[in-house]
Amino acid sequence: MTGATATLLISCPDQRGLVAKLSNFIYANGGNIVHADQHTDFLAGLFLSRIEWQLDGFKLPRDVIRPAFGAIADPLEATWTLHFSDAIPRLAIWVSRQDHCLYDLLWRHRAQELNAEIPLIISNHESLQEIAEQFGIDFHHIPIAAENKPEQEAKQLELLQQYRIDLVVLAKYMQVLSAEFVAQFSNTINIHHSFLPAFAGANPYQRAYERGVKIIGATAHYVTADLDQGPIIEQDVVRVSHRDETADLIRKGKDLERVVLARAVRLHLQNRVLVYGNRTVVFA
Amino acid sequence: MTGATATLLISCPDQRGLVAKLSNFIYANGGNIVHADQHTDFLAGLFLSRIEWQLDGFKLPRDVIRPAFGAIADPLEATWTLHFSDAIPRLAIWVSRQDHCLYDLLWRHRAQELNAEIPLIISNHESLQEIAEQFGIDFHHIPIAAENKPEQEAKQLELLQQYRIDLVVLAKYMQVLSAEFVAQFSNTINIHHSFLPAFAGANPYQRAYERGVKIIGATAHYVTADLDQGPIIEQDVVRVSHRDETADLIRKGKDLERVVLARAVRLHLQNRVLVYGNRTVVFA
Amino acid sequence: MTGATATLLISCPDQRGLVAKLSNFIYANGGNIVHADQHTDFLAGLFLSRIEWQLDGFKLPRDVIRPAFGAIADPLEATWTLHFSDAIPRLAIWVSRQDHCLYDLLWRHRAQELNAEIPLIISNHESLQEIAEQFGIDFHHIPIAAENKPEQEAKQLELLQQYRIDLVVLAKYMQVLSAEFVAQFSNTINIHHSFLPAFAGANPYQRAYERGVKIIGATAHYVTADLDQGPIIEQDVVRVSHRDETADLIRKGKDLERVVLARAVRLHLQNRVLVYGNRTVVFA
Amino acid sequence: MTGATATLLISCPDQRGLVAKLSNFIYANGGNIVHADQHTDFLAGLFLSRIEWQLDGFKLPRDVIRPAFGAIADPLEATWTLHFSDAIPRLAIWVSRQDHCLYDLLWRHRAQELNAEIPLIISNHESLQEIAEQFGIDFHHIPIAAENKPEQEAKQLELLQQYRIDLVVLAKYMQVLSAEFVAQFSNTINIHHSFLPAFAGANPYQRAYERGVKIIGATAHYVTADLDQGPIIEQDVVRVSHRDETADLIRKGKDLERVVLARAVRLHLQNRVLVYGNRTVVFA
Repeated sequence: MTGATATLLISCPDQRGLVAKLSNFIYANGGNIVHADQHTDFLAGLFLSRIEWQLDGFKLPRDVIRPAFGAIADPLEATWTLHFSDAIPRLAIWVSRQDHCLYDLLWRHRAQELNAEIPLIISNHESLQEIAEQFGIDFHHIPIAAENKPEQEAKQLELLQQYRIDLVVLAKYMQVLSAEFVAQFSNTINIHHSFLPAFAGANPYQRAYERGVKIIGATAHYVTADLDQGPIIEQDVVRVSHRDETADLIRKGKDLERVVLARAVRLHLQNRVLVYGNRTVVFA
Repeated sequence: MTGATATLLISCPDQRGLVAKLSNFIYANGGNIVHADQHTDFLAGLFLSRIEWQLDGFKLPRDVIRPAFGAIADPLEATWTLHFSDAIPRLAIWVSRQDHCLYDLLWRHRAQELNAEIPLIISNHESLQEIAEQFGIDFHHIPIAAENKPEQEAKQLELLQQYRIDLVVLAKYMQVLSAEFVAQFSNTINIHHSFLPAFAGANPYQRAYERGVKIIGATAHYVTADLDQGPIIEQDVVRVSHRDETADLIRKGKDLERVVLARAVRLHLQNRVLVYGNRTVVFA
Repeated sequence: MTGATATLLISCPDQRGLVAKLSNFIYANGGNIVHADQHTDFLAGLFLSRIEWQLDGFKLPRDVIRPAFGAIADPLEATWTLHFSDAIPRLAIWVSRQDHCLYDLLWRHRAQELNAEIPLIISNHESLQEIAEQFGIDFHHIPIAAENKPEQEAKQLELLQQYRIDLVVLAKYMQVLSAEFVAQFSNTINIHHSFLPAFAGANPYQRAYERGVKIIGATAHYVTADLDQGPIIEQDVVRVSHRDETADLIRKGKDLERVVLARAVRLHLQNRVLVYGNRTVVFA
Repeated sequence: MTGATATLLISCPDQRGLVAKLSNFIYANGGNIVHADQHTDFLAGLFLSRIEWQLDGFKLPRDVIRPAFGAIADPLEATWTLHFSDAIPRLAIWVSRQDHCLYDLLWRHRAQELNAEIPLIISNHESLQEIAEQFGIDFHHIPIAAENKPEQEAKQLELLQQYRIDLVVLAKYMQVLSAEFVAQFSNTINIHHSFLPAFAGANPYQRAYERGVKIIGATAHYVTADLDQGPIIEQDVVRVSHRDETADLIRKGKDLERVVLARAVRLHLQNRVLVYGNRTVVFA
């Protein structure tokens, strides 16, 4: 499969003929569907779908696709987004002191696993500046304290705008974003170092140790105004034993955090994640 | 979701408009799609799809659906099957001496996890007859030896016909089916007690022990004339350690075998498995 | 390895020479150690060990081993228990309406995976009486209501005494044991249908569905006066997706519950679990 | 736990009193055991053990421990090695063109997960030289062709000697070592990109795709003269589906390879792996 594709993520009240309407729109315009998946949430009475088709040979010019499809979607009361695979999203990585998720994302980016540009790294510490330089990415140090948080968040928002950032990835950024910030920039993925909803909040590995669990986990989720309560994209776990002290849980957890965050970011960048309510459909 | 559904499993050479053609057929006749999934194998140039829709409100009578859809499918050079959810498949379970998979399938059947009738158990030993009686299922003892295999397989085929069996489940039936048998009855699922293709053939746990593996597995697959080479439906694994002797691998493996076989049978009964070449698409 | 063994589970403040003192006691009396494992919890300053040795050829008569070892253990301020592999523990299974864990334990018992006698099943419903009869086990129906709980728990305790029960297994017994009950009979294993500490309490699958988790779990733990807070013995998990409704989580969870509970009971019966504080060491 | 430790890895014919003899040796000389684990292979009649104790307060000088313990081990016909935790092993990483395992090991080394020095990287290609420079490690390019293999392996052996290498890690070094090489340097860990013994040899992901497996794996093992047949240290797996083409298996496999190789190297460096016959005991 080659060439640019368009991807439609759509949800609307369930009714007869939705698959036909969507596929006819593409077929009638000469598109070749390369992926189509749908899900019906019978409880919510909701139809959710992802359709991806090749733009090569598609009769509608790109700037016409949106209005043309809108004419179909409006009567369905649909919520939808349209993405072109060659419109590369711009991603900012936010970190604190730990480097494992940052390194991992940058390595995957170089290995072409992540279809994105990464022009910006923001940190509340200076320690990872060197890595940013090594990969040739702008690094901005914005320390956060209780008393300066609003100003600093304003600076962060300004940077996101200036760098035209589409997605923020909190790669072990150990600060809570304010509800005001989230209201202004909502497209943010966080990695939490526990199997949510267990051990939401601070020090999850320490608390996992104290509870004596036999398995630990990591959770990638979209950020909402409620700490660690946003829609979950991906989770994974690893076994631990009585021999594992908190430091071992942290070490084992790093491997989880890297892979869970990377999977979530990749799924998002491939437009495979559809959020509704506090849930996600992952068209994997 | 309630009421009977129809499910179409279809594969054909890839071309534009296939999703539209399939969904239009259903929509034009007033059907409500409850599940639609498709996959394109770009290497093989093949489109594969599963569509399930509610029969309630569908305008075509059941006996007309096949010829009507055939008119659409023929020009596409499609291979397809159609299933009605209230046409309950009839299943025969074949066993030898081990009871764990048999028990598990019967328990799941009673718990309504398996949408099937189970009128027949065949075994080359008498030891599990009591379980068959306990669940009120006919039990036929057909011992197999090198010299009587052709006659015994003829008897088995006769029983399958007499009981109108749609699917045979080899639930630890420790005999190899002859190529002649497979040619005459092809809808058979086997559970092999290894992570295929490792340890195909006899004594996989003993050989896994000798090789010193750290993980063992089980594999459910369709039976073909080539031993343990058929299309794989489902696999799963469990960790083992140096403390596990062959007897421990057998014990741990039983838990795998039960669950892997049950998942495969359930997927098959839900018409979620599409075989092409020596591969399966599992629309889960 | 054949013949009866003795197993010592011991914990005491850490100090030099503990392994030597334990192993010398056994060696000096002609015992052959078949399993020895130890763990040091450096945070708690605690040494914990399991030693198992063959009784064949051991010079001390059984009734002398306890006082003899006591003379060694007392100066170490040790907590310890001694178990003989041919003193078969007596187990009571408590159930409500669901049969999967009960069936699984009884099947494993018959398959000789569980070294125990199972003379007693207690239920607050009558629905599983037939299974008890089928396996030839006494069944006592003790319905529980808010107003009669103290009397009914008194009856339950009386039955445990009458049947000389060593271990109670709550195999989906959907009632909370009172603190008074737990104070009088403490050796109880429960299976909770979530990945604790997530979703402690009622309706975990429903809440897991609502939270939109991508993995569900089950937890086997010792029962304490605090609901779902006791020391964890074993946990396991399985992936779920947006396609899984609450009923699917329940179905998938049953497979987890069966295997997690069975593993925990087996580990306990092999005297491989040592509890200290709210944690367990599992000498697997 | 702080301070240097000594670790003994020992195997010998099973007999009474082995644990006592080992622990007495340490206790009598004032050592404090921090880890002791043993395993008896009843089939092989072999006792295998790992004991680690703090050197602080141990009465025997380091150079006396070996002869002193030898006097105990000789009558037991034991095979044993002794390791001091502050004698840091020197590790060479061999690579071809793929960077993921190299990067991962170097990141872990910097994160202090691997107690080793890494002075040398050898490759049959030049492409990863830059990474070596970035981490300040000597890089030697030794291209291999059918006609020059003996000379090139002689160069490699010379480098191992010159750099005083204790352990070679084949981090996706896509060349087969000759039996002659293995005879001269035997302490080598390889990562194979399949779940051995499935898909030993070349192109495992391609063959896994063709076989239609539902799970892929990776295996870390010691290198012997027989390709992919050496003692297995660690394995892990990940699910795949019909949507995964060979390129996806390769991508998913990289994550497995990184973590499986890293775990194996860490276990080896902690002297937790004891090889006997073609098996390993992993005292984890």
